[in-house]
Formats: sequence, structure tokens, C-alpha cells
Amino acid sequence: MDSFIEPQVLKGFRDSLPQQEIPKRALMARLETVFESFGFVPIDTPVLEYTEVLLGKGGGETDKQVYRFEDHGGRDVSMRFDLTVPFARFMAAHAGTLALPFKRYHMAKVWRGENTQRGRYREFVQCDFDIVGADTAAIDLEILLMMTCSMDVLVGGNATIRLSHRGVFNRFLDKLGAKAHSVAILRAVDKLAKIGPVEVTKLLEEIVPTQSAQQILTYIAAKGSFLDVLSKLESLAGGEADDTRRLKELYALISELDISSRFVLDPSITRGLDYYTGIVYETFLDDLPGLGSVMSGGRYNNLADLYTREKLPGVGASVGLDRLLAGLEELGLLQSSAGKSHVLVLGGGSVASGAGASQKLAQSLRGLGLNAEVYLNDKKTAQQYKYAEAKGIRYVLQVSSEGIVCKDTTTGDSRSGLGPAEVAAWINQR
Amino acid sequence: MDSFIEPQVLKGFRDSLPQQEIPKRALMARLETVFESFGFVPIDTPVLEYTEVLLGKGGGETDKQVYRFEDHGGRDVSMRFDLTVPFARFMAAHAGTLALPFKRYHMAKVWRGENTQRGRYREFVQCDFDIVGADTAAIDLEILLMMTCSMDVLVGGNATIRLSHRGVFNRFLDKLGAKAHSVAILRAVDKLAKIGPVEVTKLLEEIVPTQSAQQILTYIAAKGSFLDVLSKLESLAGGEADDTRRLKELYALISELDISSRFVLDPSITRGLDYYTGIVYETFLDDLPGLGSVMSGGRYNNLADLYTREKLPGVGASVGLDRLLAGLEELGLLQSSAGKSHVLVLGGGSVASGAGASQKLAQSLRGLGLNAEVYLNDKKTAQQYKYAEAKGIRYVLQVSSEGIVCKDTTTGDSRSGLGPAEVAAWINQR
Repeated sequence: MDSFIEPQVLKGFRDSLPQQEIPKRALMARLETVFESFGFVPIDTPVLEYTEVLLGKGGGETDKQVYRFEDHGGRDVSMRFDLTVPFARFMAAHAGTLALPFKRYHMAKVWRGENTQRGRYREFVQCDFDIVGADTAAIDLEILLMMTCSMDVLVGGNATIRLSHRGVFNRFLDKLGAKAHSVAILRAVDKLAKIGPVEVTKLLEEIVPTQSAQQILTYIAAKGSFLDVLSKLESLAGGEADDTRRLKELYALISELDISSRFVLDPSITRGLDYYTGIVYETFLDDLPGLGSVMSGGRYNNLADLYTREKLPGVGASVGLDRLLAGLEELGLLQSSAGKSHVLVLGGGSVASGAGASQKLAQSLRGLGLNAEVYLNDKKTAQQYKYAEAKGIRYVLQVSSEGIVCKDTTTGDSRSGLGPAEVAAWINQR
Repeated sequence: MDSFIEPQVLKGFRDSLPQQEIPKRALMARLETVFESFGFVPIDTPVLEYTEVLLGKGGGETDKQVYRFEDHGGRDVSMRFDLTVPFARFMAAHAGTLALPFKRYHMAKVWRGENTQRGRYREFVQCDFDIVGADTAAIDLEILLMMTCSMDVLVGGNATIRLSHRGVFNRFLDKLGAKAHSVAILRAVDKLAKIGPVEVTKLLEEIVPTQSAQQILTYIAAKGSFLDVLSKLESLAGGEADDTRRLKELYALISELDISSRFVLDPSITRGLDYYTGIVYETFLDDLPGLGSVMSGGRYNNLADLYTREKLPGVGASVGLDRLLAGLEELGLLQSSAGKSHVLVLGGGSVASGAGASQKLAQSLRGLGLNAEVYLNDKKTAQQYKYAEAKGIRYVLQVSSEGIVCKDTTTGDSRSGLGPAEVAAWINQR
């Protein structure tokens, strides 16, 4: 064949090479271990759904980005653009058979035909976790605790969760007489970190009177200890109510669990979406505050109202996997790796060079718990060492007439005449 | 809202509930451990690709089943229908930067708009592994060895790999003067297990003269020890050549590795696809021979000839995950599970019932390596025990005035007055 098809991927899509895929999977596995330790269970949903199920009857900003088409049976179908909407549909379909509160996590790809100029991808992995079934401080606590535990595992706890409460803010807006504009106000306030107070005030003044804009800024700029800020917000919102009582309960609980130092009550955190009704939060790495939030979410009072009469209140968060990966890499907390082999056994390239004996030795080492790779080409020893280097394999082994020779390529140390068990012991002790 | 959207999934698609997702992920993790122990690395590719990349310029049977549409930029795109074609495109794009031979695995969803009446799904997970870069017995050996190791881990080795060689069969057809019809013959022979020799002969007689059909049947029905069958095939194909020499080398190697008893040389195994050029194989569970092959594949001499001039010979296999799951379940080798929690701590439903203390105890147990779940509703104790039962949690704990009370729900044994470390020790020793 003379004319080849160009092996290109679509704009906004990318291959994941082993050196990208291995750390990504390792990160997901570490998160999964934390989720499992709290009793969260995994689910999955179809990538393709009825368009009506995913988009409802409306037509928002997201809709234009959805990959939507007609399937072979003439159905109007779309690829999922997040994991929240499919989860809502899932809960409406299965709530009757699931033990509530239902604690699930879901790590899977989603697709959005976004503008790629801003470095965004059209295919990316989301990782969501939620507890659905009741609206209590005990459930809020578990989500917050699981977030701190995730950060313990990933960055040794060097992360801060900035927390706020949408109910208090709504009450405050109501008192200001600005509740009708809450969506626009939320959108403006959400930009505080990005564009600063002066620009946010300008945006607010386009929505509400100048005096109200000033008060909103006073509200969102409140600073101090958790309880100090809470007291300011409570008075701005018109006194104590269920929402501020919830924050007080939560503060008592996170204090009891010795994690209160990991939280800042920050009223500028609103999460742009109209969807939230209770606590909302964002998580920042202490050593990379400019990275943006790596784990965000909040409480909503009705997950699946599009599909069912049943009230399904819940609380959850979403991990920004790509951002988190970039952050961990920048902090040197990610062992970037082209492979996970502990050992390369040389000479496995041909029957003549000892493929059988090499594979046999590797089998013994695998049986002893080591990842033992056999070099499968018939090349010179220098080439074989290069392969070990390229795949980041530390130990190189060779079957010789004097028994097994084992070399540590990082230190240059070597041992000879060892049996497989001794080799494994030598490696494990280093 | 009064009119709800029906929370239904598309025909041929399904939700994966925790009791399905947990065993599936456990199976994938066990396979992954084997793959990693051989130095195989994971990759991923985009779900959406240019249609031309996935379908080439042709239009086969598969094409009609492909989910194909025009994206926002007017591009002709398709969802991947297997992992082989994207891998070929991947190798053509990245071969220059990868250390060869390249050993990869890929576990991911694929989509085919197939007829669902035969119990087929339109969305399913494939699991492929391949070694690309050279055509040698040493590389064939590694794939065969990894297949036996996978079966060791999954079914304690109670599986048989039926092996054949496409080159020998092609040589035999050539000798018969029937090579021009090889695709149709392969398709007929592939049906032997399903429809029996009489029907296959009928099919063959529609393609070749009766005498040739008889000879093909003699070839594919050859039975006996590996070396006996090999000798018959060799003589039917016209004597020794590279293909039979390869089988002899492989037999020597699997004997050296003490795994020859796991293989049967079975010339009726052809794998329908024209694509293979060397060894081909299928894997059957000894206790469920009627289940069909759970791991199949073979050697091909040119993976990516659609995209590049570079020759990329390889050998690989694909795991039938859904079938394997069904088989393991039937054999009772799959712990079906609604969760992975070791412990349920009661009383976490409200501040009044001790949410803080329950979560604190659970935290201690998590720190000791247990998956410790807190019951998050404010219900009666009997209800809380029901939840433990529904999620398959064996140990139920309660913080009381006399310290921690720990109960083993399977035996009814209980202990009280223990600290977290003692609870963990008590559970771990059981």
C-alpha cells in the first residue's frame, strides 16, 4: 500500500502513553483506597445516553458542547459531559434497590467539545464521590473528613479546604433584596480570586445598587478564625438559622476529629452553580495556591428532580484529576515512571541466547512477588542495559555459567552466584 | 415539576451497580497484577477518532455497527469498536519514541451497535495485551506464559490453551490449491465446535472440491499429543518449514517452563480473522468447556500497515471479560460483593447519637488498615444491622459507655471494652 492514513488523533484528544497512564492510574488507585476505607462503592454508567436524559428539556451553555447524534435506531443520543447527570438518572432508576445513604464514587471519562485554545481537552477523566440520602451534619462531616484523608494520602496533608454555605449566602441576598439576581451575583463573586475585588464590585454594580454591591463585598471578604467569620456572616444574614447552626455543628465535629486546622471558612467560595444549597468547598494545595482547586463540591437538596418525585438530598465532590496530576508532578510527589518492573532479566531474545532459562528465572522472581521483565530482543548487552534505563528498571539480572549475576544499576553494586530467593531478598532489603 | 423524564438507559447499554462493578474491577486488577509482573505497561487512546483512522478506506461488516457522526467542527468521527485498530494507529504514531519490543495492555470500553437480541451489549469492556516489535519464539513464549499465569491467578490453572499455527494451515491450503479461498475456509472451519464436522464439511464443499474438503477436515480434526499432531500437520502441509520449526521451538520452551501440559495443539483453532499469520490460540476453562474461549489471539506480521511503512510484527490476546466474569461466577470463584468494608461503626447518624465519636473510632481503624464504614442514618439498631447485611459487612462496632463493643455477625461472637488496636487485631486474626 502506498498511500497511508495519517495516524493522527482529533484536536482536543490525546493518547495516554505509559509514562502518563501509569501515574494517572496510581493516583486513581490511591484515591480509591481512601474511598474504600470509608465504605464508598464504585459504579459505572453508559457513555451514551438518551439526549433528553442528559440535557433535560432545557438548552444551557453546556448543551452546545455536547457530542450529540442520531444512532442506528434513529434515537437522539449524546455522550456524557459530566458524571453528575448520569448519577442523578442512576439514582432515580435504582434508589429503591440501594441501601441509603448511598455512598458511591465514579471515575470515568467525559466529553465536551470545548474551545481547545485555552489548553482544555475535549476528553478527560472525572472523579466524583457523593453521599445521597439525607441532609445531616453527620453526612457533611464524612465528606469533609474523606477530603482531608485524600489530601493526607496525596500531599501529606498540605492542603486547605475553603468552606462556605450557600444557604447563609442566599439568606443574606434575600435580606438585601437581591435574591432574584442570585445566579448572576454568584457568577460575579466566583471570579473574586481571578479578577480581584475592584473588578468584582464593578460586575456587581451592574446587577445591584452600589450599596448592595459594597455589602456583598463585605460579606465575601470576611476574614478571620472560623468562628469569627461565622459570627460576621450570621449577623450579615440576619441572625442564627438552620444554615449557621449546621456550620456550628460541623465546626464542633471537625474539632472533635482534630481536623479543624485544615479548614478555612471563606465566604468568597460560592461554586458558580445554582445547584448547591448547603455547604460548598474548594481544596487548595498549600505549596501551590495558584494551581486552583483540586477537589470541589457541595451539598444539594435534590439530586434527581428531573426524573423522580423522590427527594434525594446529597453532598459530594469532584476531583480535578488532570490539575491534581500536574500539581503533584510540580511538587515532585509523583514518581513519573515508564514502567513498574523491578528487574530486567537479560538474554531472553532467542532460544540460543537462553530465552527458556531467562523466562524461568523471571518466573521464580514473579512467584516471589517481584515484577520481573525479560528482555525480548536479541541485542548486545549495552542495548539491553539501555532498555532497562528507558523503562526505569533498577536491577539487571543475567543467567551465567556461574549462576545468577544481579546488578543494581543505580549504585553499580552486584552479586553473583545467588539463587532466585536470595536475589529477591537482596533486592527487597535495599 | 410534574412531568418527569424517564430515567432509562439505551437498549444494549446498562448501568453497573456496585455488586457488578466491584467484581469486574477486582478481576481487572488481578489481570493487571499479572501483566505488570511481566513488565507490560498500560496505555489509553481516545474514545473518538477520525472515522478514516478507525475504518480505513474499506467498508466491512463491522462498519455498519460503528457509532459514527459529524462533530462540531464538521469532522467525520467514530467511537472505537475495538482496541486493536486504535493500538495500530498508536504504534504508527509513537513507535519512534517507544522502547521495542513494546509490551502494552489496554482495558477500556468499546462500542458496537450490534443486534441486541442475541444477548449482546452495545457497550462493553475489552482487555487486550500485545508484544510488538519482533517475530520470535521468545516473544511467542512470553505471551503464552502470561496467559497460563493469568489462568493460574483466576482459576487455579484449571484452563487449557488450544494452540494452532496459521502459517502451517496456509501452507496446507496452498498445497491443496485452495489458498484463494482461505478467508471463506477459515470462516467455515471456525464453526467446527459450534456446528460439528458434518455441517462444516457441507460448508467446505460449497467452497472447494469434495476431496479437498475431506482433507481439510482430516487436517483440522488431527488429535493426539502435541508432537504427534505436529508431525501429522507437518506432513499434510508438505514437510518441515519455518512455521513448524517455530512450533517445535515453542514446544521445547513450554516444556522447559513446565507448562506444556496446559497446551493442546488443536488445528481446528483458526480464529476467523484473516489478520493472523503465526500462532493462534483460544483458552477454555476446564470446568466450563461450553463457555467458549475466555482469552484468544495470535501472531500478526504487520500491525499498522494502514498508517506506516514501518513493519510492526506482534503477538497478543484479548480477554473476554464479560464471559470470564460469568464463568468465574458460575464456578463460585468470584466473591460477589456489595462492598468492601470490613467494619460498620453504628451510631454515626447524628451529633446526638455520637457522629463524632463513631467517625473518630472509624478513623483509628482506617489508620490500622481496615475499611471502616460509619452508619450515617439515624435509625434503630436493627435497621443498622440490616444495612451491614445488605453491604456484606461482617463486623459491627458500637461506641458505648463501657468502651467499644465489637460483634462478628457471622458467628455471633462479640468482644467489649477493647481499644481500636485490639479490635483490629481481633478482626485480623479471624
